Amino acid sequence: MADYYRGNKEYFPGVGKIKFEGKDSDNDLAFKFYDENKIISGKTMKKHLRFATAYWHSFCADGSDPFGNGTIRHPWKNTEEKADAAFEFFSKLGTPYYCFHDIDASEDADSIAEYEDNYKKTTEILLERQNATGVKLLWNTANVFSHPRYMNGASTNPDFRILARAATQVKASLDANVILGGENYVFWGGREGYSTLLNTNMKKELNHMAQFLALARDYGRKIGFKGSFLIEPKPMEPTKHQYDVDSATVIGFLKEHGLDKDFKLNIEANHATLAGHSFDHELRVCADAGMLGSVDANRGDPQNGWDTDQFPTDVYDALKAMMVILDVGGLGTGGLNFDAKVRRNSTDSDDLFYAHIGGMDTFACALEIADKIIRDGKLKTRMDKRYESFTFGKGLEFEQGKMTLENLRDYALHDSPISQVSGKQELIENIMNQYMFA
Amino acid sequence: MADYYRGNKEYFPGVGKIKFEGKDSDNDLAFKFYDENKIISGKTMKKHLRFATAYWHSFCADGSDPFGNGTIRHPWKNTEEKADAAFEFFSKLGTPYYCFHDIDASEDADSIAEYEDNYKKTTEILLERQNATGVKLLWNTANVFSHPRYMNGASTNPDFRILARAATQVKASLDANVILGGENYVFWGGREGYSTLLNTNMKKELNHMAQFLALARDYGRKIGFKGSFLIEPKPMEPTKHQYDVDSATVIGFLKEHGLDKDFKLNIEANHATLAGHSFDHELRVCADAGMLGSVDANRGDPQNGWDTDQFPTDVYDALKAMMVILDVGGLGTGGLNFDAKVRRNSTDSDDLFYAHIGGMDTFACALEIADKIIRDGKLKTRMDKRYESFTFGKGLEFEQGKMTLENLRDYALHDSPISQVSGKQELIENIMNQYMFA
Amino acid sequence: MADYYRGNKEYFPGVGKIKFEGKDSDNDLAFKFYDENKIISGKTMKKHLRFATAYWHSFCADGSDPFGNGTIRHPWKNTEEKADAAFEFFSKLGTPYYCFHDIDASEDADSIAEYEDNYKKTTEILLERQNATGVKLLWNTANVFSHPRYMNGASTNPDFRILARAATQVKASLDANVILGGENYVFWGGREGYSTLLNTNMKKELNHMAQFLALARDYGRKIGFKGSFLIEPKPMEPTKHQYDVDSATVIGFLKEHGLDKDFKLNIEANHATLAGHSFDHELRVCADAGMLGSVDANRGDPQNGWDTDQFPTDVYDALKAMMVILDVGGLGTGGLNFDAKVRRNSTDSDDLFYAHIGGMDTFACALEIADKIIRDGKLKTRMDKRYESFTFGKGLEFEQGKMTLENLRDYALHDSPISQVSGKQELIENIMNQYMFA
Amino acid sequence: MADYYRGNKEYFPGVGKIKFEGKDSDNDLAFKFYDENKIISGKTMKKHLRFATAYWHSFCADGSDPFGNGTIRHPWKNTEEKADAAFEFFSKLGTPYYCFHDIDASEDADSIAEYEDNYKKTTEILLERQNATGVKLLWNTANVFSHPRYMNGASTNPDFRILARAATQVKASLDANVILGGENYVFWGGREGYSTLLNTNMKKELNHMAQFLALARDYGRKIGFKGSFLIEPKPMEPTKHQYDVDSATVIGFLKEHGLDKDFKLNIEANHATLAGHSFDHELRVCADAGMLGSVDANRGDPQNGWDTDQFPTDVYDALKAMMVILDVGGLGTGGLNFDAKVRRNSTDSDDLFYAHIGGMDTFACALEIADKIIRDGKLKTRMDKRYESFTFGKGLEFEQGKMTLENLRDYALHDSPISQVSGKQELIENIMNQYMFA
Repeated sequence: MADYYRGNKEYFPGVGKIKFEGKDSDNDLAFKFYDENKIISGKTMKKHLRFATAYWHSFCADGSDPFGNGTIRHPWKNTEEKADAAFEFFSKLGTPYYCFHDIDASEDADSIAEYEDNYKKTTEILLERQNATGVKLLWNTANVFSHPRYMNGASTNPDFRILARAATQVKASLDANVILGGENYVFWGGREGYSTLLNTNMKKELNHMAQFLALARDYGRKIGFKGSFLIEPKPMEPTKHQYDVDSATVIGFLKEHGLDKDFKLNIEANHATLAGHSFDHELRVCADAGMLGSVDANRGDPQNGWDTDQFPTDVYDALKAMMVILDVGGLGTGGLNFDAKVRRNSTDSDDLFYAHIGGMDTFACALEIADKIIRDGKLKTRMDKRYESFTFGKGLEFEQGKMTLENLRDYALHDSPISQVSGKQELIENIMNQYMFA
Repeated sequence: MADYYRGNKEYFPGVGKIKFEGKDSDNDLAFKFYDENKIISGKTMKKHLRFATAYWHSFCADGSDPFGNGTIRHPWKNTEEKADAAFEFFSKLGTPYYCFHDIDASEDADSIAEYEDNYKKTTEILLERQNATGVKLLWNTANVFSHPRYMNGASTNPDFRILARAATQVKASLDANVILGGENYVFWGGREGYSTLLNTNMKKELNHMAQFLALARDYGRKIGFKGSFLIEPKPMEPTKHQYDVDSATVIGFLKEHGLDKDFKLNIEANHATLAGHSFDHELRVCADAGMLGSVDANRGDPQNGWDTDQFPTDVYDALKAMMVILDVGGLGTGGLNFDAKVRRNSTDSDDLFYAHIGGMDTFACALEIADKIIRDGKLKTRMDKRYESFTFGKGLEFEQGKMTLENLRDYALHDSPISQVSGKQELIENIMNQYMFA
Repeated sequence: MADYYRGNKEYFPGVGKIKFEGKDSDNDLAFKFYDENKIISGKTMKKHLRFATAYWHSFCADGSDPFGNGTIRHPWKNTEEKADAAFEFFSKLGTPYYCFHDIDASEDADSIAEYEDNYKKTTEILLERQNATGVKLLWNTANVFSHPRYMNGASTNPDFRILARAATQVKASLDANVILGGENYVFWGGREGYSTLLNTNMKKELNHMAQFLALARDYGRKIGFKGSFLIEPKPMEPTKHQYDVDSATVIGFLKEHGLDKDFKLNIEANHATLAGHSFDHELRVCADAGMLGSVDANRGDPQNGWDTDQFPTDVYDALKAMMVILDVGGLGTGGLNFDAKVRRNSTDSDDLFYAHIGGMDTFACALEIADKIIRDGKLKTRMDKRYESFTFGKGLEFEQGKMTLENLRDYALHDSPISQVSGKQELIENIMNQYMFA
Repeated sequence: MADYYRGNKEYFPGVGKIKFEGKDSDNDLAFKFYDENKIISGKTMKKHLRFATAYWHSFCADGSDPFGNGTIRHPWKNTEEKADAAFEFFSKLGTPYYCFHDIDASEDADSIAEYEDNYKKTTEILLERQNATGVKLLWNTANVFSHPRYMNGASTNPDFRILARAATQVKASLDANVILGGENYVFWGGREGYSTLLNTNMKKELNHMAQFLALARDYGRKIGFKGSFLIEPKPMEPTKHQYDVDSATVIGFLKEHGLDKDFKLNIEANHATLAGHSFDHELRVCADAGMLGSVDANRGDPQNGWDTDQFPTDVYDALKAMMVILDVGGLGTGGLNFDAKVRRNSTDSDDLFYAHIGGMDTFACALEIADKIIRDGKLKTRMDKRYESFTFGKGLEFEQGKMTLENLRDYALHDSPISQVSGKQELIENIMNQYMFA
C-alpha cells in the first residue's frame, strides 16, 4: 500500500515518499538533514519546523516573468485535479501543513455568486483531502491584488466599490478557513500603497485599511475563527510603495488602530531584505513585540532588487532565524511555509521536490545547530554579561525608573574612569562558524 | 556701516552681504530666487523657509573622509573665533537661524566639570552674538556619537556608565538651549543600534532609550524648555543598524513609550533615501501623524549608498517637500537647516557661500512653484475626486464605522459592474513639469 | 482631410493631431515644449530628437506584472489592425520613427516556416503604412527572450539547437529591416547571462555570443544593411546576471571580438541606473569611445530595484543626456525611442498620449536648455581651464608620451609648492539650476 | 626559544604563536580549520592560500569613521616600533606574506626628499624583519588618495603637478618593491574618478591614467621588477564614481591601452558587491581573461551600501571563490590578503588575532570543501554535459566558425522539436549544502 496520497491519477509518478537518509546519502530525492521524528530538545523536528507547502508557487506558477511566457506546464486541469496533485505532493514530501490564496485553489469568477459557489465546492474538495492525508491548513488568504480591478488597491482603493468587492473575497476566505480548521489567516497588501504620492491621500487610505481589517477581525471572531490574523510586511513590488513596509511599521499601525490583540505578523525573508533589513532582524522585532506569528521561508538574490522568492538554501540565514524562533519558544500556531518558487528554467517535475527538500534540509540543519548553540549557552552568557551593569546599583535604579537626568549626571560626575569594552564581534562570528562547520 | 556681523577679525573678507538679484543676475554671490521679503501667500519667504545654517558641517568639518585627511583648513582657533566666523557667515548669508551640537561650538573635555564649564562660557559667547545679529537658535543637540566612549551606543549602551555620561551632555545641552532660547531640541541616534544582533538585546536597549528620552523630556520641561523635542530618523551609518530607521518606526516607538506628546520628528532628505523612501514620503508620514517637527535639507547621491549630505539642488525634490509643508500649514517652530557639507574638493572659502546660496535658491524656487500649485488647486481637486465615493452613501457609512464585512459583501453583490478608473499618473507628472518650467 | 493616418477604423477616436501650443496652454493633449519645426542651433527639434515610438510597450503591453493580470485591453485583433492603430498613433503624436521586435508586430509561431511567412506579410503591411505616413523605422530586433525555449539563453544557450532557432529570428528580422529601410538593428540580451555560476561556463557562452553576433553582422552586410548594429546593455532582469552589464563591459567585449567597427550601443536610462550608473555617465562612456548609437529614453524609480520603464519626466536627467548628445554632434542615425510603458493603472486610452507628450516635452525642454548652455560656453570654458596644465610645458610633454616616471619625479622635486584647486561643484550646480529655472 | 619574532618590546604580550588545534578546540586563540602543513591535493594549505596581513588596517587604522574619532590606540610610536609590532603579529599568526602602502609603513612628508629618505630607511627596517622571520612581501602600493593634494585625483588629476607628485610615490614604491622582493605591485584608484561629470573630461583623464600606468610599468621593468602589476577595481567610495568600476571595465581599459601583458587584477570581495556583482563573478571574469592576479579577502554588510571591509566569515562566499581559484590552478604569485578591519568597537588587542584567525579558518574550511567538490567531479560533469551539443556535428561546426547565419537557420528548420532542459539550480544548491554540512 502506498505511503502517500494518490487521487484518480498520479501526478508525480517517478517520485515516491521522500525519506530521511542522512548526510551521506547520494539519493537526490531523500532528506539529508530533515528527520521528522528526530527529537530536538524534547520536540520532534516536525513540530519545531511546522513546514507548509504553498499552493500558489508550487501548483499555480508557470515560470513566467515580466519578460517571458510560462515555461512550466502543469498537467492538472481543474480544481479537483489540482487538489489531488497538491495533496499527493504534500504527502510524498511530508510537509504537515499547506497554505493558499482563494483563487489558487478555487476558480475565480467575475460574478460574486459564482465565485462563492466555486469556493464552497473547493472547500469540500480540500477538506476531503485534508482528512485523507492528515495535512492541515496553516493559513489561507484572499488574493485581492492580481485581478485588474485591484490595480489601485483593495482596502485602500480610492473607489469604495472595489473595497467592497475585496470584502467579498475576505469574507469567503474566512468562511473557508473555519471549515478547514485553518490555524491562521493572512493579509498581504500587494496593492495597498501608492504609485505616486501626487494622487494619493495616504492618511485616508490607511484609515480605510485599518477599518477593513477591523471588520474582517470582527467577522472572523463572529464565525468562530480562533487563530491569529497575520499581516505580511513588504515594502514595495508590485506597488512602488506598499504601506506594510516592515515589522516596525506594521506593528505601529496595528497598535495605532487597536488591532494588536488579534493580529500578528507573517515575516518573509525576502521581504525583509527588500526593506533593507536582515531576516533575523525582522523576526526579532516581532518577537520582542510578542507579535511573531508565522514565517515565509525563502531568500532573495543579494545582487538583485526584486522579490526572487528562491527556496532557502543559506544555512547562516536559517540558523539566525531559528535562534530567534527557539528563543521565543517556537512558532506557536505559525509555521515555516515556503513562499518560494523554482527558477524559471527548473522545468522538470522533480525540480519541485529538490527545491522543497533543499529548503527543508536547510532549516533542519539550522535547527540542529541553533539548538546546540542555545543548549550550550555560551553566546547567551556573553550577551547577558554585556548588560550586567543594569542588574544592580544605579543601573538597576535607572531601569526601575528611579533616576532623573540630574541623578544620571551626578552619578557620571563621581564615577571612576570608564574603561572600553570590546563588542567581540569577530570572536562571536568565529564561534558561530565553529558551531556550523565543526 | 557694515550690513553684517563682524567680530575682531573678518573671516570671509572677500564676501559681503548676499543679496537677491533675481534670475538674470550673473553674480555668483547673489540669490537668484530667494528674496527674503517677498510675500508668498501672505507670508515672507523668510518666514516660510526658516533657514538655518549648521555649525558642524560649515564650521567644523574639514573635508576628510574614510580614505583621506582633511582638505579644508579653517582659520578660527578657538570657541570665540569660531563663533565670530559663524555669525559673520550667518549674517552675510541671511539665514535667520542656526543649529549646533554641544562640541561643535564648545570644546569637549574628558572631565565633566571642564566640559560643563566650557559649555557655559560658550553659551555666553553665542548669546552675545545672537543678540548682536538677531540670528536665533533653531535647535541644539548633544553629540553622543563621536567620542570613542560611545562606540557601543549612548542611551542604548550595554554599559550603564556610558549612558550616564551621555546624560551629562544632554543635560548641559538642555541648559544651554533654555538660555539661548532654542525653539527645538534634537536627538540623533548615530550609535543607538547594533553592529551585530548576536551580541545585542534589542528590546532592553530600546527600553533604555525610551527611558532616557523620558528623563530628558522631564528635565527640559522642568527647566522651562517649551519647544519640541525632535528625533531624527536614520536607518544606518555609522552603525550597521540604527534603531530610528524611518518616520514610521520612530512614530511607533514614541507612541509605544508615551513620548508622542512632546516629541516630533526632524526629517532629513538623505536619511529618507537611505531608508528606501522618498523625502516627501517621510515628510508626509510625519505630517499625517501631526508630528512633523523640522527638516534637515540636503540630498544624497542616487548612485551611492551612504550619507553624502550634499546641498539640496534638485528642485523636484524640494518642490514635493514644500507641497507637504505648505499643505500642513508650514514648519511651525521648525525650520529648514542645511545638514549638508561642501564636497571634499570644494576648498575655497567662497564655496561655502555658493553651497548655501544654491540650497536656499532651490527651496525658494520650489516654494514659489508649490504655492502656485496649491493656489491653483487643480491637483488637489483631482485628488479629492478620486475619493469621492467615500463622501456619500455606503462609502460614507463605511468611513463612519457603520458597516460590517457582511454589509460590504452584500453591497458588492448588488452593485453595478465596476468601471476602471485610471490613476492618471503621467498626466499629473506632465502638469508638474508645466508648473516648473512654464 | 485628416492630418493623421487612419486605417479602416479609428483606434483613438477622441484624439486628433497633437499640436504644439506652448507653455501656457491648458490643453492636456498639446505639446508645451516640443515644437517640431523650431530651429535650435540650425536644426529643427524634430531632427535633433529623432523620437521613436516603441511597438511593444505601446501596442502590445497590457499592464500585467508578476503579481497581476493585464489591466489594459487593446481593441486591435490582428497584425493589420495593430499596425493601423500604431501608425494612427505615430501620425497623431508626430514621432517620425518607430521600432519593434519581430513578434510585437508579427504573429509568432512554433513552425519556423509559419513564423517566416507571417513576418513577410507583416513587413508588407508595415511598409505600406510607412509609405502612407512617412514614418520611418529607427530599428527592429528579434525577441529571443520571451519564448520558453530561450529560458537558458539564445546565443548563449548551452543547447546548440536553441542558438540555431534564435538565428532564424535574427535572420528574418534582418531581412525585414532591409525591406523597411531600418536605420539600425538592435540586440538586447535579456536571457544572455546566468542564473547561477554553478552550472555555467561563462567563457564558452561569451564566445558563442560573439560568434553569433559576427554571423548576424556578416549576413546583414551581405543583404545590404548599411546601418549600425546596436547592443543594448542591461545588468540584470530578467536574468540574474546579464552579460551586457553596462557600456564599458559591452565596449570591451565588442573590441575583444573585433565587432567594434559595426556595432555601437543603444543606451537605456533605466538600465544605466540598474547598473549603478547615471544615464549621462553611460552616454558619455559610449560617446568617448565613438560608439554612441541610439537611446532608449525612459526612467526608473529611485526607490525600486527593477526596470520600471517609466516615461522620462525628469528634466535634470534629460538635460544632462542632451548635453552629451549635443557635445558629440547629435544622435547620427540613432534616435530617442521611448522604451517606456504607462503605469499599470493608467488604463484610459488617452494616457498613452499623455505619457508620450510628457516624454517628448521633457526632452524638448532639455534640448533648449542644453543648447543654451553649450552656446553660452561658460561651463565648457570652466572645464577646459581645469586641464590647462596639460596644454604647455611638461604637462604637454607628458600627454605626448615624452616623459618617463623618473622625469615626472624630477619635475615634481623641483616644482613650486602645489596650490589647492577647488572643483567648484556647488557653484556649477547653481549655474545649472539658473539655466533651468531662470 | 620563542617560536615567533619579537623586537625590542613585545606588542601582543598575552598571545603566543597561533596553532592549529582542530574543530573541537575551545581555545579562541587557535585555528580550528587552518592547518598550514596539511596537504590538499598535493600542496600545503599554506601554499594554496598564501595569506597576507595588511599593514594599513591592522597597524594603522584606529577605528575612526566619518561620525567618530578613533577608538583604538596603538602603542607603537615610530616606523621601527610599528614594524616590530607588525612582524611580531605576522609571525605569531603565521601569515607568510604581508602588504603595505608606502605611508602605512614609512612616515609621509611634504618634502619629496624627506619622503624618499624616510622610505629608504623604512625599506631597510622591513628587509631586516623579512629576513628575520621569512615573511615575504606579497605587494606594496603607493597611497595617492589620502593626502589632500590628491582630492581631485592622482594620475587623473586635472592639474599636471599633482600627477607628477603621484609619480614620485609610485617610483619610490617600485624602488622599495624591488629591494624587498615584492611579488606584485598594486594600483588602487581611490581618487581616480569624478565627483560630477559637469566639471570632468573623462576621456582625457582616462588617457592620462593609461599613460601613467605605462610609465610605471616601464620604470618597474627597467629596475628589474619581474612580478605582476595589479589593478584593484572599485566602483565608488571615496569618489562618487571611480574609473576602475569592476573587472570587465578594467580589463577593457587595460586591453584598450596595451597594458594587458603586464597588468592583472586584484579582486576584492567587498568591491565586487559594491559593483553589483558577486565575489566569485568577479574572480571568474578575471580567470576567464587569464588576468586573475591576487585577492583582497573581506566581506561587506549585505544591508549597508559602503565598504565595510569586514573580515571574511561566510563559508559560502569563500567556497565559491576557492572553486574558481582551484579551477584556474591556484593564485600563482598572488595571495589572499586581508583588506579587512576589526569593527570600531573591537578594541581589545586580541580582537585583531580573532579577526585574522576567523578569516583564515573561513578560507581553510572553504579550501577543503572546494577541493572535495573538484576531486569528486560531479558538478563539473553536470556542467560539461549541459554544453555537449557543441562537441559534435553542427554545434561543433558553429564553434569552429564554419557556419553562417543562413546555415543556422537551415539547421533549425530541419531540426527535430526542441525539448526543454532544466537548469537544475535547486538540486545543485542542495548538493553544495551537502558538501558543506555533511
